[in-house]
Amino acid sequence: MTVTADVAVAGGGVIGTAIAWRAAAAGLDVTLVDPQHDDGASLVAAGMLAPVSESIFGEEALLRLNLLAVRRFPAFAAGLEERTGQHIGLRQEGTLAVAYDPGDHAALLRLTEFRRSVGLDAAELDSRAIRKLEPFLTPEVRGGALFAGDWSVDNRRYLAALRQAAQAAGVRTVPGLVSRVSSAGVELAGGDAISCGTVVVAAGWGSAGIAGLPGRLADVVRPVKGQLLRLRLPAAMPPVLSHTVRAVVRGTDVYLVPRADGELVVGATQEERGPDRTVTAGAVHDLLRDALSVLPVLSELVLAETCAGLRPGTLDNGPVVGPAGAGLLLATGHYRNGILLSAVTADAAVAWLTGQAPAAEWAPFTPDRFAAPARSA
Amino acid sequence: MTVTADVAVAGGGVIGTAIAWRAAAAGLDVTLVDPQHDDGASLVAAGMLAPVSESIFGEEALLRLNLLAVRRFPAFAAGLEERTGQHIGLRQEGTLAVAYDPGDHAALLRLTEFRRSVGLDAAELDSRAIRKLEPFLTPEVRGGALFAGDWSVDNRRYLAALRQAAQAAGVRTVPGLVSRVSSAGVELAGGDAISCGTVVVAAGWGSAGIAGLPGRLADVVRPVKGQLLRLRLPAAMPPVLSHTVRAVVRGTDVYLVPRADGELVVGATQEERGPDRTVTAGAVHDLLRDALSVLPVLSELVLAETCAGLRPGTLDNGPVVGPAGAGLLLATGHYRNGILLSAVTADAAVAWLTGQAPAAEWAPFTPDRFAAPARSA
Repeated sequence: MTVTADVAVAGGGVIGTAIAWRAAAAGLDVTLVDPQHDDGASLVAAGMLAPVSESIFGEEALLRLNLLAVRRFPAFAAGLEERTGQHIGLRQEGTLAVAYDPGDHAALLRLTEFRRSVGLDAAELDSRAIRKLEPFLTPEVRGGALFAGDWSVDNRRYLAALRQAAQAAGVRTVPGLVSRVSSAGVELAGGDAISCGTVVVAAGWGSAGIAGLPGRLADVVRPVKGQLLRLRLPAAMPPVLSHTVRAVVRGTDVYLVPRADGELVVGATQEERGPDRTVTAGAVHDLLRDALSVLPVLSELVLAETCAGLRPGTLDNGPVVGPAGAGLLLATGHYRNGILLSAVTADAAVAWLTGQAPAAEWAPFTPDRFAAPARSA
Repeated sequence: MTVTADVAVAGGGVIGTAIAWRAAAAGLDVTLVDPQHDDGASLVAAGMLAPVSESIFGEEALLRLNLLAVRRFPAFAAGLEERTGQHIGLRQEGTLAVAYDPGDHAALLRLTEFRRSVGLDAAELDSRAIRKLEPFLTPEVRGGALFAGDWSVDNRRYLAALRQAAQAAGVRTVPGLVSRVSSAGVELAGGDAISCGTVVVAAGWGSAGIAGLPGRLADVVRPVKGQLLRLRLPAAMPPVLSHTVRAVVRGTDVYLVPRADGELVVGATQEERGPDRTVTAGAVHDLLRDALSVLPVLSELVLAETCAGLRPGTLDNGPVVGPAGAGLLLATGHYRNGILLSAVTADAAVAWLTGQAPAAEWAPFTPDRFAAPARSA
């Protein structure tokens, strides 16, 4: 079977689906090749939109991009909700970062100071103010900060809404896996082909396994395993958190992301194990231990799901978005920020596809930054 | 729809299915009403056959019954495996009980002494001997005992084999739930009926909810929630245990039951919460914490499943097996020993159904022990 399209998009996560939707809405004829795995990073993710609490020293270009992304998200989400009639659970209460021991507290204060110095909304809070915002947090909290600009979205509802919007906009979805990109289009693992003018590769860490791409992509994008837990409030238990809470417990970062529907996501490990997606006893134990030490009442919540996903990590932690030769656009490497960056990645991809200029914040993240020849061994 | 049978059995767990199989093999025409839940105690259980390590002061009659059961089990299992061609994973390496702190160790030694005094095989071991048997146990183990007479079986394979044997022996299985027992037979929740000479009620804790039974059963049998974990060795990891290991960690009993196929079951909570079957974050955390403190390498195992079941507990922790009026046989209340007692319960039920005398060990466990009028409030 050969399908013909203006654009073929490889990858059915939030990045690929958002691009497909917006490209179709811009008048292009789009085919989305969706592996329809339940195990993509998009479905496993916690849904944090966290430019502030994810920002660290030395990644200012990524911070600028993430800030562009979080400013864009509400209007993008509103458009999506309006078109689909779905609620995607955007929460804008902000993120509360807390610390327990003096060392972790000092590190958090340094980071808070840095974030304020680059213009971010970061308010230091003492333990009393923190417990006033979140009464169920352990009284042992030493201090922390409120990052009002860090929000969250229900990533599963968001992806479901994107799929619905893409379909309504006329995107043709082909179940399958892109195995090769050529000048004529793409070939699927099962032998089918799509003939198209432009290919968009948005297959997460799996992008690196597609044949026919510029040689270095497999060196640039790698899977970074994340395990996380989905808890649920039992019937009749009122909400136990209203903000996303992030804590450093014994040097490890744990986050708790509450949803309006009673879900509470606890994450996440950060593991360099290749494409392994098993849920391990040790990781689940550590996540529960750290989360319980922050929020003891969590012991009464239902452990609804344990899951593991593979983030597309890159050499410099930044995404890889932009043209990579004639008729080829890459949109991968979103690492820890895929949900957050999905809307602006779709904007940028549509700009490139229609001959317009993407936002200036994308300049440091085009594929050509990795184009220098590899050093010989 | 009305079916006619000699015997109708309510309950598709190991007790009901074993009875149905043996009754059919004895020449009776049997219909089994099987709710076909995946959540019965039989499927959630760990499969320990543990007369010795489950024995405590003051329950000597139950110990005698459990010893009868464990002696009977190998021949029963062999017959089942022969008839079905299935392996049910009987392991006879014995159970290793270990203790860490001085108080827990002293308590274990007292219990070991008691067990030896009633003729059980219970050998004290020092930490060196224990680590020789199980090298992956934490070196912090203080001492323990080997109970050679405590075995295990893969309860899920066992139930599957029982179902196959029952079908092959001519048992008719009706999916459904028995809602009422009458002198004419049983009525199902959907309105169907089975007309029969004798009804066997073997529906676990759900037996108490069947109408038409002797009044006190609902006061006698209650659900006792147990949560447990099913771990799996990752590919290429050799077995980490060969014996069932039981440990007291901070006063709580945890057990680890290894299977030849790489499964490792960790259990179990003991909770009085009515018919609640949710898996909670606190219980999973505590089980993992305790198991990891015994066997640190467990952190690398895959957490394949978390589950919760409801044991049919009784007022005196003993089963309720025997006639309860004309044409009615009860076989419930097996509490923590359902897998172990299934074979001898089937033997006893068939004896009663065919006018023979069951083993003398059953005398303390017939329903009439609860027949005295309830004290008024």
